[in-house]
Amino acid sequence: MALTLEQARAIIAGARDKGRAMGLKPLSVVVLDAGGHVLAFEREDDAAPGRFGIAQGKAYGAVMLGMAGRAQMARAEAQAYFMAAVNGVYGGKVVPVPGGVLLRDGGGAVIGAIGVTGDTSDNDAEAALAGAAAAGISAEA
Amino acid sequence: MALTLEQARAIIAGARDKGRAMGLKPLSVVVLDAGGHVLAFEREDDAAPGRFGIAQGKAYGAVMLGMAGRAQMARAEAQAYFMAAVNGVYGGKVVPVPGGVLLRDGGGAVIGAIGVTGDTSDNDAEAALAGAAAAGISAEA
Amino acid sequence: MALTLEQARAIIAGARDKGRAMGLKPLSVVVLDAGGHVLAFEREDDAAPGRFGIAQGKAYGAVMLGMAGRAQMARAEAQAYFMAAVNGVYGGKVVPVPGGVLLRDGGGAVIGAIGVTGDTSDNDAEAALAGAAAAGISAEA
Amino acid sequence: MALTLEQARAIIAGARDKGRAMGLKPLSVVVLDAGGHVLAFEREDDAAPGRFGIAQGKAYGAVMLGMAGRAQMARAEAQAYFMAAVNGVYGGKVVPVPGGVLLRDGGGAVIGAIGVTGDTSDNDAEAALAGAAAAGISAEA
Repeated sequence: MALTLEQARAIIAGARDKGRAMGLKPLSVVVLDAGGHVLAFEREDDAAPGRFGIAQGKAYGAVMLGMAGRAQMARAEAQAYFMAAVNGVYGGKVVPVPGGVLLRDGGGAVIGAIGVTGDTSDNDAEAALAGAAAAGISAEA
Repeated sequence: MALTLEQARAIIAGARDKGRAMGLKPLSVVVLDAGGHVLAFEREDDAAPGRFGIAQGKAYGAVMLGMAGRAQMARAEAQAYFMAAVNGVYGGKVVPVPGGVLLRDGGGAVIGAIGVTGDTSDNDAEAALAGAAAAGISAEA
Repeated sequence: MALTLEQARAIIAGARDKGRAMGLKPLSVVVLDAGGHVLAFEREDDAAPGRFGIAQGKAYGAVMLGMAGRAQMARAEAQAYFMAAVNGVYGGKVVPVPGGVLLRDGGGAVIGAIGVTGDTSDNDAEAALAGAAAAGISAEA
Repeated sequence: MALTLEQARAIIAGARDKGRAMGLKPLSVVVLDAGGHVLAFEREDDAAPGRFGIAQGKAYGAVMLGMAGRAQMARAEAQAYFMAAVNGVYGGKVVPVPGGVLLRDGGGAVIGAIGVTGDTSDNDAEAALAGAAAAGISAEA
């Protein structure tokens, strides 16, 4: 099962709605496909200009390693040089903190990832999970 | 005047509508702000996975050089080495063909750019112009 | 449908068999998935050490642009600066000549690509097509 | 003595067999030659898409520094900035953890390296050693 653009749009809408409901700072939300390539992105007004790269980096590491943001952060805290090396391999595109959320199909296969940035990493992750829920897709933060 | 996310979404919707009306191949549409940074992006189903980079490259060159896609292509045809050098300066992110469209405010200042890819370059540009028109923003292809 | 490792191995074996049957120089054969990521690779003895990158480049451009090697070469001949710009976008990983072959599922969707290098580009493409045929997968050179 | 493709294939088969016997997660296995260039690679089904780069990084550091993964990890734990600098020199391609295994000929000369990724680093190294043993080649983890 490949993610569709309509699913990606539903995820972004759901994450942004959650951000408004929680009173979070302006969010930026990306959805990547199972190969780590961008399907859709939105950056809310008054967010800093560089947010696309941070959102992408959270989601990209999740897809490429098959590890959600919390697991990446744990590995980075335990072995900082390992995540630094991983970033060398992936061209510096990995941001190993919460807010990178894996998306899975009914059989458990990774079909993509969400990346949210703008508020605290934990709040970013909560908004991402709300986005996945809004689209009816299983997710892991 | 800075582009808002709602304007960017209107541009993308307008470009996609035009693509459907013209019977074009699946389109990918990005909107960049006045600093060349990503505001919003959508890739239609069945488009090739690498389309984000091409769309971004068309719009990025437009903003960074202040030249729309047709003008960039003319320069590339006349002086290929110049556009190659420009790409060295801008990290290889410029794709100098139609489909990169400048957005201007009422006073003529550049406020961002659209990048469309998926069909022929000329059709991509036509869809981009339709997106700008749908959002009521002055544009140059 | 995602390509399996067994299918990738069958493709490589089929391409290598064709190379031996045609009396070609030592071949290097890569199979990428639908996201452009490496599934399997083999480099025959006496091939030059840098052949992995050439094989990958032929297949990578095919997947990322959704264009097989012959179509990429035609575009490069018509607009050299465009393919140069595409290579900037994709980090210099695209080699736009025959030998990059798209793989499609029964519905026509791209599920990956083969990259073959070692002999002439046309012979490389013929070996790649034989690999796809050996695995029973629809292909476009 | 140069590694042959048939030896590389035997190494990969042996490492994968060990992974299945130990019940490990899906493995990705690369074999590099004495110059650090890719000879053969296989990524098992359900492994994350980015595994080629991690496998290559483990083996590449081993060949280029003449140090197996455990020795690289010890150095990284003692002097993280040194391994970061090494990665600057080698273009970010070194992943300094177990799973990178040196291959030596009868006289002790390095003839290549194996890189395995997918399970814990220690299990990855054990599978790599089993691959070398299956091919009858002396190895150091």
